[in-house]
Amino acid sequence: MSDIEQLKQQVEAQGSVVRDLKAAKADKAQVDEQVALLQALKKKLHIANGGDADESKKKGGSGKSLVLKEPKGTKDYSPKEMAVRTEIFSTIVSVFEKHGAVTIDTPVFELKEILVGKYGEDSKLIYDLKDQGGEECSLRYDLTVPFARYVAQKSISNIKRYHLAKVYRRDQPAITKGRMREFYQCDYDIAGIYDAMIPDVECVRVAVDVLRRLDVGGFVVKVNHRKILDAIFEVSGVPQEKVRAISSAVDKLDKAPWTEVRREMTQEKGLEEAVADRIGQYVQISGPGEEVLAKLRALPELMASAKAQEGIKDMGLFFRYAAIYGILDYVSFDMSLARGLDYYTGIIYEAVLVEENVRLPTAPETSAKKGKGDAVDESQIRVGSIAAGGRYDELVGMFSSVMHAKGKKTDVPCVGISFGVERIFSIVKSRRSEAEIKANRTQVYVISLGDTLTDSLLEDRMRIAAELWDAGIAAEFAYKVKPRPQAQYDACDSAIIPWAVIIGKDEIGQGTVKIKNMAQKVEEEKGGVAVPRANMIAELKQRLQMN
Amino acid sequence: MSDIEQLKQQVEAQGSVVRDLKAAKADKAQVDEQVALLQALKKKLHIANGGDADESKKKGGSGKSLVLKEPKGTKDYSPKEMAVRTEIFSTIVSVFEKHGAVTIDTPVFELKEILVGKYGEDSKLIYDLKDQGGEECSLRYDLTVPFARYVAQKSISNIKRYHLAKVYRRDQPAITKGRMREFYQCDYDIAGIYDAMIPDVECVRVAVDVLRRLDVGGFVVKVNHRKILDAIFEVSGVPQEKVRAISSAVDKLDKAPWTEVRREMTQEKGLEEAVADRIGQYVQISGPGEEVLAKLRALPELMASAKAQEGIKDMGLFFRYAAIYGILDYVSFDMSLARGLDYYTGIIYEAVLVEENVRLPTAPETSAKKGKGDAVDESQIRVGSIAAGGRYDELVGMFSSVMHAKGKKTDVPCVGISFGVERIFSIVKSRRSEAEIKANRTQVYVISLGDTLTDSLLEDRMRIAAELWDAGIAAEFAYKVKPRPQAQYDACDSAIIPWAVIIGKDEIGQGTVKIKNMAQKVEEEKGGVAVPRANMIAELKQRLQMN
Repeated sequence: MSDIEQLKQQVEAQGSVVRDLKAAKADKAQVDEQVALLQALKKKLHIANGGDADESKKKGGSGKSLVLKEPKGTKDYSPKEMAVRTEIFSTIVSVFEKHGAVTIDTPVFELKEILVGKYGEDSKLIYDLKDQGGEECSLRYDLTVPFARYVAQKSISNIKRYHLAKVYRRDQPAITKGRMREFYQCDYDIAGIYDAMIPDVECVRVAVDVLRRLDVGGFVVKVNHRKILDAIFEVSGVPQEKVRAISSAVDKLDKAPWTEVRREMTQEKGLEEAVADRIGQYVQISGPGEEVLAKLRALPELMASAKAQEGIKDMGLFFRYAAIYGILDYVSFDMSLARGLDYYTGIIYEAVLVEENVRLPTAPETSAKKGKGDAVDESQIRVGSIAAGGRYDELVGMFSSVMHAKGKKTDVPCVGISFGVERIFSIVKSRRSEAEIKANRTQVYVISLGDTLTDSLLEDRMRIAAELWDAGIAAEFAYKVKPRPQAQYDACDSAIIPWAVIIGKDEIGQGTVKIKNMAQKVEEEKGGVAVPRANMIAELKQRLQMN
Repeated sequence: MSDIEQLKQQVEAQGSVVRDLKAAKADKAQVDEQVALLQALKKKLHIANGGDADESKKKGGSGKSLVLKEPKGTKDYSPKEMAVRTEIFSTIVSVFEKHGAVTIDTPVFELKEILVGKYGEDSKLIYDLKDQGGEECSLRYDLTVPFARYVAQKSISNIKRYHLAKVYRRDQPAITKGRMREFYQCDYDIAGIYDAMIPDVECVRVAVDVLRRLDVGGFVVKVNHRKILDAIFEVSGVPQEKVRAISSAVDKLDKAPWTEVRREMTQEKGLEEAVADRIGQYVQISGPGEEVLAKLRALPELMASAKAQEGIKDMGLFFRYAAIYGILDYVSFDMSLARGLDYYTGIIYEAVLVEENVRLPTAPETSAKKGKGDAVDESQIRVGSIAAGGRYDELVGMFSSVMHAKGKKTDVPCVGISFGVERIFSIVKSRRSEAEIKANRTQVYVISLGDTLTDSLLEDRMRIAAELWDAGIAAEFAYKVKPRPQAQYDACDSAIIPWAVIIGKDEIGQGTVKIKNMAQKVEEEKGGVAVPRANMIAELKQRLQMN
């Protein structure tokens, strides 16, 4: 029976399935399903008869043409990209684990009400699942809120956990900037009641360690404190109800010059000009910790605020501990850092890449530059935030129903850091030549040469491969009865497989195999070194430095 | 200011935000957001005033109470569960990579039209995303269809890939059986035009290797061939349009006795009784490969079918190669295996756990038992399918628009195996004592003893920890200025940390630290071995067997 004959029969049979279903007034979804299958078969038949698969597309015909692509803002990862990603993840996880973190996993979607009221203006970017009966659910927007839900739900009093997982935001994608709708976050958080700033400084130490190991180039970790920011707004005279809006304007200072941010404050958000100018004086302060602390302590109107005192006390401890941890060179105390999210209550930080391999600019220079006019020094504009976080002491409490005897809720204070891996991925990937990335872990390729008129060598290759697998050696061979020698060498080379085991009629007769170094292409014998078949595993393990 | 005073002010400020927004006729979503915040603050104030957090729940009041739980059919994984899961994944990946597979990643959702028409009756279980403007998307239902989409979209002619990722099915959850709405699949697939049965047998070899390494207990891999099944239905006289329905009835033979399946065929699906009985004769054939092949070859009416001949030729090769790969003992050729999915075109297989540690029952015994009556031998009813797969040669072609000169589509033939990890996870986890599972990788805990009236020892602990981290040693210490000695020992024990570095006033004075073996609790000196501070890293690395 020809393909066309067979297809005709299938179309007929499927047609009768559809007719039967319709006659039986079957469930609409079921009918649609079968109709779709019928149409697919008809299209197949049409093509088999010489028709064009893309006809409907060109003609804009009734048959909806299938577009083969990933959904907007998402991407597939190729094997070589995955090799890079796996390496990045493994570096990140090794640092997290070096600091004693355990890992948890939570579902990719949460009950919708868990996410409500946690993300401020950005809540509109949350992906909802369709209501197909049952609970209303949304894809997670970050890993922090699911973590807080987990801690509250399980009544956990302390945990240091990491979580590498995808999060979802219906944002306008900008793939060149690494802004995707589906992207990975790598989070490290410490929850529990501890003494001031000890876990906080460890989070920044983790960030520095990760970024140094990933070799992303020059970076600076900007730090600030929500209580100091709050005090600045208070002291400057920002009305209470405008604090969030003004704070989110300040947060734009890394992307926009002060004049523009000032305009947003006064014209869009209705702040008095004098108030904006007072804020301007504060938020342009930045530099090494001790210098900024000294500057702040010298501002009597700020120091009159209890909040400012609390924040400055915290930051004093922070820089003291940061010195012990050897990370002072990477940290800049920056009053313009505000962070968009609502839930932060203490220290906040953000690691940004700097254009050149500049570490922290020296303070006098920075202040001088910044002091010059209203514009923020352009050389300081970030090329990208690659990690961020802070202290959020009340988020778990929003979920928690644990009560003290006095009717006061128990919060579980938290501090954490989140790495945005898409940008890190772009940087690390751009440094590699595609051809050099080995996406597999195959150690040995089994090749047969010579007389391939009989198929017996396939089974010999299979036998050798099975023996290698049994010994824990990663091995492959051509899935052909009679593969061409060159095709086998090429397969070995293109997969960057370092060793070959070569057999031919002679080797089979002599009970030997040849072992050839494919990586170096230099060998004691050109065709490889002959070893007795019985010694093959031992000889390979020695070359592969396996125990 | 008391907490209550502060909350009152916050409620007032937030109230004014809401009023302003309403007055400005702001976007509804924005207003709702702020109202939710206001209500949360009011509730907080209510509680601070001595009210009950759960009041609204008890009274069924207007305030919707927040239920803290994972969505139905999904679950959180605790650190100890994650330790088990990570171990399982790492075993599976190591086998996949031993066979040369690379990995890819695809988005968690696909364009809806990609999934349509691929899953037969089960399409109703697909999760859709809500239409929030833009493309219609659905959560992936398996990893096979996204893989086929990937291969077609990227015009890949051959690839051997693995993918460990979550898939989603709106099924009725049965957590005890490991049936979840969100669950992991671990897939290994070989795509490309190769010689018959070589990749196919490797998939089964991979399944056997993985299940042996995971030590899941006794299991059997049932194999069958779609073409033989098709021939059986043809020869038995099943009308073309009923083939799918009857095939899906046969697939239930592992859960239901023949009498029940026969009733479904004849009464629900309107099959003639004589036809059902003919099918019954065939599908009860099972046993070791060569025996079943001999039985089938002795059935002239079956062998008259070209399809049957093709299938039997394939299976002949399969069992020949399976012998070379040393997996014959695990494989049963079982005519009752049908597999629900539509896309299989060749060999199909399913690994099932057997109650006791029974491997393959000897064939005469099995046939004898099965020959007795209509009922399937109950001892053979599966306790659970833990891996399954088969050959699907046309799925990529459904997506592919690659055309031959003759107007014929180029399919990329595929064969693969998918592991259902939730069941494997339950088995492996049930074998472990919770207390023995170490969820972290911390190697050293830094403890301070003695006079803790000064806080200087905190900084010494920090300094030691930083030194350990710099040396690549995983280390933790108490995040307290003055931790109690016993609390530190307890933390060390409960996290199963094998080594402690102990300091006190004496050690600081002498420039030494004590190293104590916490795992064995037996030590040359009860309080640990004193070593010069300068040798600490070297001494620890030696004990930790680090290079």
